[in-house]
Amino acid sequence: MDVHKILIQAIGEKWRLLPEDMGKAIVRHYGINVPAGERVTSFEEAQRAASDQGYPLVIKALVPELIHKSDRDAVRVGIENETTLLKTTRELWKLFPNTPLLVEQMVKPGVELITGLMNDEHFGPCLMIGTGGVFTEVFQDVDFLMIPADRHDFLRVLTGLKGYKLLTGFRGKPPYDIGNVVDALRSFAQFGVEAAGYYETVDINPLVVNESGAKALDVKIVLKPLFAPATLDSPLPPTHYLHHFFAPESVVIIGASSAPTKPGNVVIRNILANGYEGKLYLVNPKGGDILGLPVHPSVDSLPEGIDLAIIIIPAKETPQALREVASKGIKHVVLSAGGFAEVDEYGAQIQQELTNIIQDKKIHVLGPNTSGHISTPHKFTSSFFPLGKIRQGKVSYIAQTGNFATHTMKYILTGEGFGVSRVFGLGNKIDIEESQALQFLGDDPETNAIVMYLESIKYPRRFLKVAGEVTRRKPVVMLKGGSTEAGKHAAVAHTAAMASEDSLVDGMLRQAGIVRIWDYTHLILAGKVLSMVSLPKGNRVSFLAPSGAMLVVLSDLCTRLGLSVPDLEQETLRRIQEISPPYIRMRNPVDIWASVSVKGIEFAYREGMEAVLKDPNIDAVIPILMLTRETGMPNFDFIVDLMKKYPEKPILASFSGDKRCIDECREFLEPRGVPTFFEVEQPFEALSILVRCAKVMNRSK
Amino acid sequence: MDVHKILIQAIGEKWRLLPEDMGKAIVRHYGINVPAGERVTSFEEAQRAASDQGYPLVIKALVPELIHKSDRDAVRVGIENETTLLKTTRELWKLFPNTPLLVEQMVKPGVELITGLMNDEHFGPCLMIGTGGVFTEVFQDVDFLMIPADRHDFLRVLTGLKGYKLLTGFRGKPPYDIGNVVDALRSFAQFGVEAAGYYETVDINPLVVNESGAKALDVKIVLKPLFAPATLDSPLPPTHYLHHFFAPESVVIIGASSAPTKPGNVVIRNILANGYEGKLYLVNPKGGDILGLPVHPSVDSLPEGIDLAIIIIPAKETPQALREVASKGIKHVVLSAGGFAEVDEYGAQIQQELTNIIQDKKIHVLGPNTSGHISTPHKFTSSFFPLGKIRQGKVSYIAQTGNFATHTMKYILTGEGFGVSRVFGLGNKIDIEESQALQFLGDDPETNAIVMYLESIKYPRRFLKVAGEVTRRKPVVMLKGGSTEAGKHAAVAHTAAMASEDSLVDGMLRQAGIVRIWDYTHLILAGKVLSMVSLPKGNRVSFLAPSGAMLVVLSDLCTRLGLSVPDLEQETLRRIQEISPPYIRMRNPVDIWASVSVKGIEFAYREGMEAVLKDPNIDAVIPILMLTRETGMPNFDFIVDLMKKYPEKPILASFSGDKRCIDECREFLEPRGVPTFFEVEQPFEALSILVRCAKVMNRSK
Repeated sequence: MDVHKILIQAIGEKWRLLPEDMGKAIVRHYGINVPAGERVTSFEEAQRAASDQGYPLVIKALVPELIHKSDRDAVRVGIENETTLLKTTRELWKLFPNTPLLVEQMVKPGVELITGLMNDEHFGPCLMIGTGGVFTEVFQDVDFLMIPADRHDFLRVLTGLKGYKLLTGFRGKPPYDIGNVVDALRSFAQFGVEAAGYYETVDINPLVVNESGAKALDVKIVLKPLFAPATLDSPLPPTHYLHHFFAPESVVIIGASSAPTKPGNVVIRNILANGYEGKLYLVNPKGGDILGLPVHPSVDSLPEGIDLAIIIIPAKETPQALREVASKGIKHVVLSAGGFAEVDEYGAQIQQELTNIIQDKKIHVLGPNTSGHISTPHKFTSSFFPLGKIRQGKVSYIAQTGNFATHTMKYILTGEGFGVSRVFGLGNKIDIEESQALQFLGDDPETNAIVMYLESIKYPRRFLKVAGEVTRRKPVVMLKGGSTEAGKHAAVAHTAAMASEDSLVDGMLRQAGIVRIWDYTHLILAGKVLSMVSLPKGNRVSFLAPSGAMLVVLSDLCTRLGLSVPDLEQETLRRIQEISPPYIRMRNPVDIWASVSVKGIEFAYREGMEAVLKDPNIDAVIPILMLTRETGMPNFDFIVDLMKKYPEKPILASFSGDKRCIDECREFLEPRGVPTFFEVEQPFEALSILVRCAKVMNRSK
Repeated sequence: MDVHKILIQAIGEKWRLLPEDMGKAIVRHYGINVPAGERVTSFEEAQRAASDQGYPLVIKALVPELIHKSDRDAVRVGIENETTLLKTTRELWKLFPNTPLLVEQMVKPGVELITGLMNDEHFGPCLMIGTGGVFTEVFQDVDFLMIPADRHDFLRVLTGLKGYKLLTGFRGKPPYDIGNVVDALRSFAQFGVEAAGYYETVDINPLVVNESGAKALDVKIVLKPLFAPATLDSPLPPTHYLHHFFAPESVVIIGASSAPTKPGNVVIRNILANGYEGKLYLVNPKGGDILGLPVHPSVDSLPEGIDLAIIIIPAKETPQALREVASKGIKHVVLSAGGFAEVDEYGAQIQQELTNIIQDKKIHVLGPNTSGHISTPHKFTSSFFPLGKIRQGKVSYIAQTGNFATHTMKYILTGEGFGVSRVFGLGNKIDIEESQALQFLGDDPETNAIVMYLESIKYPRRFLKVAGEVTRRKPVVMLKGGSTEAGKHAAVAHTAAMASEDSLVDGMLRQAGIVRIWDYTHLILAGKVLSMVSLPKGNRVSFLAPSGAMLVVLSDLCTRLGLSVPDLEQETLRRIQEISPPYIRMRNPVDIWASVSVKGIEFAYREGMEAVLKDPNIDAVIPILMLTRETGMPNFDFIVDLMKKYPEKPILASFSGDKRCIDECREFLEPRGVPTFFEVEQPFEALSILVRCAKVMNRSK
């Protein structure tokens, strides 16, 4: 069977919807089971088909334009004998004259799934899988996969459905063979990839799963108006050149300014404050000197061989400056100005001019409209926001927002204890985009973990490939802006109706092994814990709290976050009971207050924490410290000591009580490497991010 | 039809499950439609039934012990003619010999709902309503209602289902008559109330809704082993006596101590620190004086007519002290010690002794195991935790935890700007429980809003009645501990399987008009906003943020929280465009940074905020202030002024930038009545609590 020939012919004849029996023949060709059936145009043919297939039967009118056949009574089920066959065919031909009918064996009921293919302009071919039936749109229990995909990805999306439990032995039914379903999905995906030039969407709805396997009861192929090959790949260019941005030996600032509030001045002060050790050149037509550094009147007068230029002048003057630095042989440029495609049509024109120059001169550009980048291992930044000295750390950020290298960084420096390694402010991404940035950080020995904020993904297929590999070596966490935008696809079919931009992104991030977060504040939370503690072995937490209500409410929170609060070993129970008055039955979570009131805060928390840290059932420990002046402030060294003694088990601390004591304790613990959280929910949220990171890093290949 | 007689007979004959046709006859008697059907025991009877009903038919074996009939092939659908009728009856009698069959008209397909009744030991009769079919357990799209209930409650739970949209015209079907469904549910609930003594659970599954109305296709009544009347009411006792706890004219402390760390000393210092103006007596066998106050050696030596006693001595000595104060004529007592039923069997015995004394002496008790109560309008507290002077406010708390009047209160006093009116620490609730507390606060002119933390509800029916009324006058917010406990009901039927303790509570809180929250931190957040701002008219918010990423991410958050970010009036747009450079297209949410950089922070935020405050499409405004030393700290009076000028529109502020500047701004704004939030998500979460409060207060009667 030549599937391509059939499809190209159908498109040539301007069909939008392939007749169901042809659709079924195609997917059967790819190895997906469909009911035995025949197309008939007369009662005699129907009789013959009936005797071939055997009763009971299903009869469908092959009405070409119908999208939901059930809406127009074109499907009749449960035809038990010839009398009903005659009656039914008559009725259908009366409703749909001269329409061929499809006479099919009736399939035994089973669990109804839905699967579909969609050729997204931006994401390429994607497979949808979900719980089917009338509730698909109501409950939206679906997931998406960019195809081709690995076998374990199909298994992951299938087992991740809420409706998956229907397949595993539900209400007295036997468990069904999941391998059959995965095989059917893989075959369908193979068709999806090979025929990507021909279809817009394909729905198999329902895919019925029962003890005989998985069977496609309806197949609806919506064709493209014209054949158009789908892009399946977007190769990653080499990223080694990014070293010139993050470890430049010499830098020139085009647009250096002597006015202290101007970006062209702040950027110089930032570079000096960070102790940059390379050569720094300034250019301004006025010449003279700024902050004690000589100013070159023009690019021409600069020496040869400068690594990196920062162009920090108005948008409309930027193309000329870019041409000049390129002509001078400078191959790496940060374009700081805004006022390009993000603003208006005129800005978009200037941005196109920049793109042309980049291609023409074979140079690399960060931005435009970037607030700069940071590289603490190289004591360097191009940020033009007054940051001063930036604390060094092991977490790197990729941010498609001017926020990050500016006021969010300012908050981290003034309100948190951790530092950063590299920060990419991507800006308008006319050259350097997230895939290159991620690859670079994946290879970067100074980066242990990566936190991203993106509003769009420029090359989803490239990104999936890079991320799928980097996330096996380093935790990658992402906040995606624009998660609740309305779906952009018109609802011609189920698959398309379910596929909002965000549902595709969401599926893709899971496929790539990226841990998705939802709050802006969690960009900071994630950076903090990934900086300060190691990933836990699993999701088993013990926490110590000063009140029953907190034990109850935080246990509820653990359940919501996917953390387990397991039972402790006998030896651990013995130990924590020993430090407590007998009227408290000690268990996990640990009700520590009675012990505190008898033994003192330091002894109770220290002994309690060490007991649960030693327990092989526990992967992480969260003490909630109740602090007031009146109940006494201990020496908190014991927490730092426990942290060092059990480095493989994260300790995350939170608080209750007097705000002033809490602040004091945080100021003691944070610089000593213990992450602390002002609100009691936050250490649990942070731990759940770590647990998810550990889980994806250990996923099967 | 005498339903009671039928049920009592069935119980007498030790039936657990009523045969389906009897169940159907009963619900039909209450006005619920069921398919026409007949019980048959021979093929001749089946033929006669068939000719009565007309094909197609459904045949069910009336096997008494079957719970899920479909599991054992006991249901056959689509019987089209006599041949099939014969074949089917033979098969069924072979599988289930000597079993009567139910021959019924086949009902046209429609939307499948599930509804059920459950006689919960604690909650009494409850009705469940949910989306039916095989996915009921998978998607758990169900809600619960304590019955009897008002008509609008049935409508609320029905329209609140995700699956409700299936009824309103889905995939080309016409919208169905919702009134029919509500009528069926009300009839069912009437049966549920009247027959509450007879059944454990009743399932109608499915209740099929189509253009002909709602029809019960299966009715399964699981009987009680013995008739037992259900409690439908638990009248509220008078609560006026609570004034003696919250405005006592004289107080005695039994167990006053001279040791500064002992509770019996701390409580005296708290009372003195708050400036209590009534008479304060102390009792301790040692006599002498404490903190300058004379100590009575015994209760005997006290004057007559003391309003309130605080007994703060060990558990085992508490009953004797309680007897003594009661004999002295003191009718209101706070029992502070722990060590009762919350600890062990011995403690439970002492607690029972206390209960006996209370009943015997007709006195009222708060506790035992309470950390005390607070009444700032009366400058009084019984808290034994070192709190000092407690700030007065208009929000009151009811807390079933020692946390609240202790370390959480300490945090509020040291870390937040708001105060409280009354605080109930309920403790073990042997006398005063949440319903009485809520009624008292509902009537209390010093309380504008009520925030609750409960782990159990002692009298759900009493509570529903009180809360249903109070929530129409004052906002009531609740955190319920133990929300993720496993269901306690064995899964003999669908309704019971879906009914965890928490799902009943959740339904009941909605029915009562209480706004449920999920985080411990939100107990404080809710108290704060309810103290500081008025309820908004609706959910329409405008926010001003200093970066595109925040605009995007916080818009996503609004969608998740049910807040709308509507378009602005032309005049508003004109005004905000006027203060901005032309290259930013100003809209809601407001991208304020360009305006700040041109016009300065004070001008930009002031003019931007006033423009959106004036807009009739906006109910609340959230400025995200970006503050650093370098970009300048304005005078924040303008926010206080706007707050006063537009009192009906809440202003909630958050921040970005330098932590030290943020702290400084918060310290300025909070004492001046502007609620501020450290994290950018919090003002939105707080606003969504206010919006939900406003919505339930305006609900239909």
